[in-house]
Amino acid sequence: MKLYDAAMPGTRGARVRWILEELGIPYDVKTLDLRKDAKQPEYLEIHPHGRVPAFEIEGEAIIESAAICMQLADLHADRGLAPKLGTPERARWYQWIVYAPATLDGPIVERLFHTALLPPDKRRPELVERADATWKTAAPFLTKTLSKQDWLVGDAFTAADVVVGYDVALAANMGMLEGHPALQAYLGRLSSRPAFVKAYEGG
Amino acid sequence: MKLYDAAMPGTRGARVRWILEELGIPYDVKTLDLRKDAKQPEYLEIHPHGRVPAFEIEGEAIIESAAICMQLADLHADRGLAPKLGTPERARWYQWIVYAPATLDGPIVERLFHTALLPPDKRRPELVERADATWKTAAPFLTKTLSKQDWLVGDAFTAADVVVGYDVALAANMGMLEGHPALQAYLGRLSSRPAFVKAYEGG
Repeated sequence: MKLYDAAMPGTRGARVRWILEELGIPYDVKTLDLRKDAKQPEYLEIHPHGRVPAFEIEGEAIIESAAICMQLADLHADRGLAPKLGTPERARWYQWIVYAPATLDGPIVERLFHTALLPPDKRRPELVERADATWKTAAPFLTKTLSKQDWLVGDAFTAADVVVGYDVALAANMGMLEGHPALQAYLGRLSSRPAFVKAYEGG
Repeated sequence: MKLYDAAMPGTRGARVRWILEELGIPYDVKTLDLRKDAKQPEYLEIHPHGRVPAFEIEGEAIIESAAICMQLADLHADRGLAPKLGTPERARWYQWIVYAPATLDGPIVERLFHTALLPPDKRRPELVERADATWKTAAPFLTKTLSKQDWLVGDAFTAADVVVGYDVALAANMGMLEGHPALQAYLGRLSSRPAFVKAYEGG
């Protein structure tokens, strides 16, 4: 199993490293320079958009971090990171796992770029405003669930917490958890997991 | 089972209607006015962002069209719209089902708004450019698979074709399939399915 990631903090490769650490699966990492290696024909065969992560499993490459997390959770179903098929918990799991890339990632990643990563003359304040407007609804929505239970789906930590937790951790780095104590407490639970620490701080 | 949708063409509720028609499941539709009903507290309890679709199943509401499609496909696994857990086909299914909301929906829906739905003085050409740049990579990526097989995952039509097919149909309405014969042929296969016709024309 090989993870293609970039030498840059905050990539969505963190989701894949995190779930692999939760599952205790050994893996290789190929670290790319996003401006050079990731635009070479060889890598574009693996990820047509020249982004990270991509994940090779039995010689086949899959893209989309949320998809990779679902597949890994299913492959190790005994570890409890994926609720059983056809249950209401599975529906809720799908909802949160899709909510992250569909609704959270765009605004949060755009906010990061347009407040910090891009040079000041390339930053567009209207995209930051749009991100903040989404977060203004998303934060109470997450809070509604996370103020009555520790994890997003049922009573146990699942892959949904990895996928959404990535966004919560990124939001925290931008000060977006201020005034959201339930989300701060959730991040506290997430970041005290050994797998989180290894994924974010290990090599 | 109740689908919350809007009286507007092109909503992502089409994905849910389509898969319900494929599965032959009867359902109720509650049609909302996006500017009024969808912003009422009662609906915001169901969908915090005041968008459509939302789907009520056994009294529990789920949001995110791709998530709803996965759950419905699992609940009727005998109909073959979801590959078996833990197989390479299931990984590919997840990839395409996440690719749609993560990578395709944003640009395609933004393009629709900023070329047609918004009044001319609110349209932002740079968002159309960004959409076109994504499509320039996405169209060959889809073509790579769809020029060698009829459907996205393995040899059979699955929920991935519903989720991604929605974007292909929307792209076609904006003339974006020109110069992409494999995608035109794919849309031909999709739109000749009785469930597609019922979802898009019935109702």
